[in-house]
Amino acid sequence: MTPRGHAFIMLKRYFPIFSWLPHYQARLFGADLLAGLIVTVMVIPQSLAYALLAGLPAVVGLYASILPQLLYSVFGTSRTLAVGPVAIVALMTGAALSNIAAPGSAEYIEAALVLSLLSGGILVLMGALRMGFFSNFLSHPVISGFLTASGILIAASQFGGLLGVESGGFTLFERLATLWVNLPNFNPATLLMSLGVLAFLVWVRRYGNASLKRLGLPHGAADLLARAGPILAVVVTTLVTWLWQLQDQGVAVVGTIPSGLPPLSLPWPDASLWHTLLVPALLISLVGFVESVSMGQMLAAKRRQRISPNQELIGLGVANLAAGVSSAMPVTGGLSRTVANYHAGAQTPAAGAFAALGIGVVTYTLTDWLYYLPIATLAAFITVSILTLVDIPTLRATWRYSRSDFAALAMTIALTLGEGIEAGIIGGITLSVALFLYRTSRPHSALIGRVPDTEHFRNVVRHEVETAPQVALLRIDESLYFANARYLEDTLYNLVASRPALEDVVIVCSAVNLIDASALESLEAINARLKDSGVTLHLAEVKGPVMDRLKCSDFPDQLTGRMFLSTYAAWQALSRPASPGNSA
Amino acid sequence: MTPRGHAFIMLKRYFPIFSWLPHYQARLFGADLLAGLIVTVMVIPQSLAYALLAGLPAVVGLYASILPQLLYSVFGTSRTLAVGPVAIVALMTGAALSNIAAPGSAEYIEAALVLSLLSGGILVLMGALRMGFFSNFLSHPVISGFLTASGILIAASQFGGLLGVESGGFTLFERLATLWVNLPNFNPATLLMSLGVLAFLVWVRRYGNASLKRLGLPHGAADLLARAGPILAVVVTTLVTWLWQLQDQGVAVVGTIPSGLPPLSLPWPDASLWHTLLVPALLISLVGFVESVSMGQMLAAKRRQRISPNQELIGLGVANLAAGVSSAMPVTGGLSRTVANYHAGAQTPAAGAFAALGIGVVTYTLTDWLYYLPIATLAAFITVSILTLVDIPTLRATWRYSRSDFAALAMTIALTLGEGIEAGIIGGITLSVALFLYRTSRPHSALIGRVPDTEHFRNVVRHEVETAPQVALLRIDESLYFANARYLEDTLYNLVASRPALEDVVIVCSAVNLIDASALESLEAINARLKDSGVTLHLAEVKGPVMDRLKCSDFPDQLTGRMFLSTYAAWQALSRPASPGNSA
Repeated sequence: MTPRGHAFIMLKRYFPIFSWLPHYQARLFGADLLAGLIVTVMVIPQSLAYALLAGLPAVVGLYASILPQLLYSVFGTSRTLAVGPVAIVALMTGAALSNIAAPGSAEYIEAALVLSLLSGGILVLMGALRMGFFSNFLSHPVISGFLTASGILIAASQFGGLLGVESGGFTLFERLATLWVNLPNFNPATLLMSLGVLAFLVWVRRYGNASLKRLGLPHGAADLLARAGPILAVVVTTLVTWLWQLQDQGVAVVGTIPSGLPPLSLPWPDASLWHTLLVPALLISLVGFVESVSMGQMLAAKRRQRISPNQELIGLGVANLAAGVSSAMPVTGGLSRTVANYHAGAQTPAAGAFAALGIGVVTYTLTDWLYYLPIATLAAFITVSILTLVDIPTLRATWRYSRSDFAALAMTIALTLGEGIEAGIIGGITLSVALFLYRTSRPHSALIGRVPDTEHFRNVVRHEVETAPQVALLRIDESLYFANARYLEDTLYNLVASRPALEDVVIVCSAVNLIDASALESLEAINARLKDSGVTLHLAEVKGPVMDRLKCSDFPDQLTGRMFLSTYAAWQALSRPASPGNSA
Repeated sequence: MTPRGHAFIMLKRYFPIFSWLPHYQARLFGADLLAGLIVTVMVIPQSLAYALLAGLPAVVGLYASILPQLLYSVFGTSRTLAVGPVAIVALMTGAALSNIAAPGSAEYIEAALVLSLLSGGILVLMGALRMGFFSNFLSHPVISGFLTASGILIAASQFGGLLGVESGGFTLFERLATLWVNLPNFNPATLLMSLGVLAFLVWVRRYGNASLKRLGLPHGAADLLARAGPILAVVVTTLVTWLWQLQDQGVAVVGTIPSGLPPLSLPWPDASLWHTLLVPALLISLVGFVESVSMGQMLAAKRRQRISPNQELIGLGVANLAAGVSSAMPVTGGLSRTVANYHAGAQTPAAGAFAALGIGVVTYTLTDWLYYLPIATLAAFITVSILTLVDIPTLRATWRYSRSDFAALAMTIALTLGEGIEAGIIGGITLSVALFLYRTSRPHSALIGRVPDTEHFRNVVRHEVETAPQVALLRIDESLYFANARYLEDTLYNLVASRPALEDVVIVCSAVNLIDASALESLEAINARLKDSGVTLHLAEVKGPVMDRLKCSDFPDQLTGRMFLSTYAAWQALSRPASPGNSA
């Protein structure tokens, strides 16, 4: 490859914008622009709400949706991930900062910037060190369970807005409990509006496309217009609220927002602040990365695209650095905004960039127009989008295929709903790993015999095969390591104890990819104990890499028997019929 | 089997004493009695010291070496494990109790009994629930590292006694630091005595047997007498100290101990005390179990014996229950006392029982004789016994055989020396598991070809084999699960991208023992993506259990190609030479 070609590949790897921008077309532009508009309208109140959740001024949420997203569009690899303030990170931010200063004070706001810079630095460092493989250790059932449970949690968090009542708390139980308590205070006008918007959005999602086509619109236009349904709902409900001054009827609205672009600054407080915020920043980075990558992988898989976890670390890191210098707060890929972006039809990261620019425009000039935007409308939109994450088909398929994986999935859902996202992810990963170790700690083994007139050997239980009484061919269907070393010994000893006529045992290693130090000790113990019992131990079909390691030990010298290249060679050498005078 | 035979097997399982007592002989009796005498002499000051370490009266340590050990000899499965107070459990006990009452007060002493009962109950419960398999997850390198580091730690803890100076602290660093600071205050008489005893003990261990035989003693007697060396050292140094009143020269002695058998009682304090001590009891139980089982397994392996972790849980649990009713403290298998028991020649648990009875006799009548016993003598004995745990041959063998395992071993040693036993074990296990996951997350795969004129297939890189340009036979040497699902996809996509002429890819699954839900999704993604590229995907040699699971999914229907029973069948079907007119 030419140096120029090589340079171009490096450019695309570290600046992923160059992998899609050169191929940009009018069709993509149209879809992305529309998606950008939809997302702009949708994320504004969400951003305001999450900033307040973190104890910061509402406008900080808007700032956090501008520059970070723009930079992610240059450095990130997911076509549909939307970056900005998210609920769980906002909660963690509030918790970290409230130990340092009073919410809303100047020190508090500056500490938020420091937290963003720290988080960004950690993410970029992890990306540079190629630590993205951590995300491999999230099994798909755990990811699916986490997204399902998060979807339920966020939907439940919107019920209060839909009904016009207060609701709070972190776990599903707390939220539903406060909802139940406040239920009698629901606002009829809000409920009416919510039901109307919900019904409209569900109808548009399911039948909008077909109905528009029946009206004679061409396919592309029908699709676009159907996706624009939510904007229509926003505009209509805002107008209705303004016309009839519904906020006096108890319908919650967004209210006043200060206008102007985000001020730029470089915070530089004393070293102790950096030190205090280091661990919260680390946790926020990890949770944010895991959420974003799991979302990104799932959505990319739906479109047969792929993301690069290492580059995602860099993209999210740069986004957080941008947040730190633009008066914002820690950001990451947001669940509801990403899902909205995806379902609004985003094709490339340009959609996210358009949304960021859109929010910039709104923050600069249009904040007054948001005054009458009902909270209920956006609660309805979030609810409808989020519930698509509840992945029933995967639940069913996993239950059918693998009970272990289903257990991990169920545990993740239960922990996320009961204790929160972090507990859910950690519990899910721990259970996945523990189950895998448990399954491999009791490996399947099969006594095998010869398929007549061939060189193949199969399980005596499942096939009609030839065997010999003085030889046992035992195939172990697992790599040998510490978790199953003891079970291996038990298996061998039980075999020898149950067949007193045995003279030779051959361990067929065609499925053994690894023999670690613990298993090697167990093999040495087995060799010695079988020798005491008058039985010779052999190995067959040891793989190349495994044999290379064995040669660095004393085991080949200690082994009482031989190492055969194939099971057939072992069969030929050992299964000779007993000669007269010998007892079989 | 007859009901009577069945009952007898159950009896031996839950009362292991019945597996060795019926076969008891005079030879064993002699060895066990001598070992019991040696251990009696050795554990007395150790028990006193550890009770003081826990903030309890010194005599409590003696009580803790009587009834608990007697009951362990009935219920335990290790022939050589000696049960009593140990350093780390004493430290944990002191830490737990000092939050509740003032050290030495009546409440404090009663709380120690409650802690013992709780710990005993937890262990018995775990044993009844067959949770002993937890100990399987300790890899041998981690156990070896932990024992090596513990040996170093305990030996270092004796240096103060050897030199007659103060030393304290928990980590190796702290201990050596305090030693260094106090070094100028060393006591010459103590040092002289220590050097003398050390030299004698090392000489007896190495040459005692041979020298006695040269003197004409028969083999058995020479062996016994050589093992009695330490008793000689104890008697001589005690006499010397008494004769010359060396305690006035600064030689530390054991001092006054109250006499009488352990008082029996059943503590029953309020519920809040049980509640407060629950977590410390759980930790003490876990650490005690892990230490005892790892010691027990290592020593049993040396003698080709086996222990039963589940029954060990019950044995240790009953021992702690006994401690709780006999005015004692939490107990477990002790490192130095077990090693002493082993090297003193114990053959069965009767040795431990004799030691317990011996201590009972001493506590009843002979406590005055212990007054002049020099601490230095016992420090020397502990040092010489313990350093046998530092397992250099295993370190070397592990380094040669497996760098991953060596890393886990080194980490365990480093953490144990630097942070303590718990940190060492937890760190070692975590690293073992993490390394195993990492190794299996990048599985070895081999393109295979046909060994000419046979039905066997081997790695194209290592053997001379036939291949076909339009077919790739890829053998994956690992089970497929979440940690390597992504790598599997990368491998397949890279393969297809590097060979544009490919029409068929066969994944040979002879080494695949498991396909979990994540890997199944990856296979489905691979199938679809290869289909888009015009390549057909096949599987070969799928194992029975794996196929059973696959049938519970949609994958067999989605698969573009076929599932072949053998690689040879796939070869026959797919490797037909290209007919004229087709491009190869």
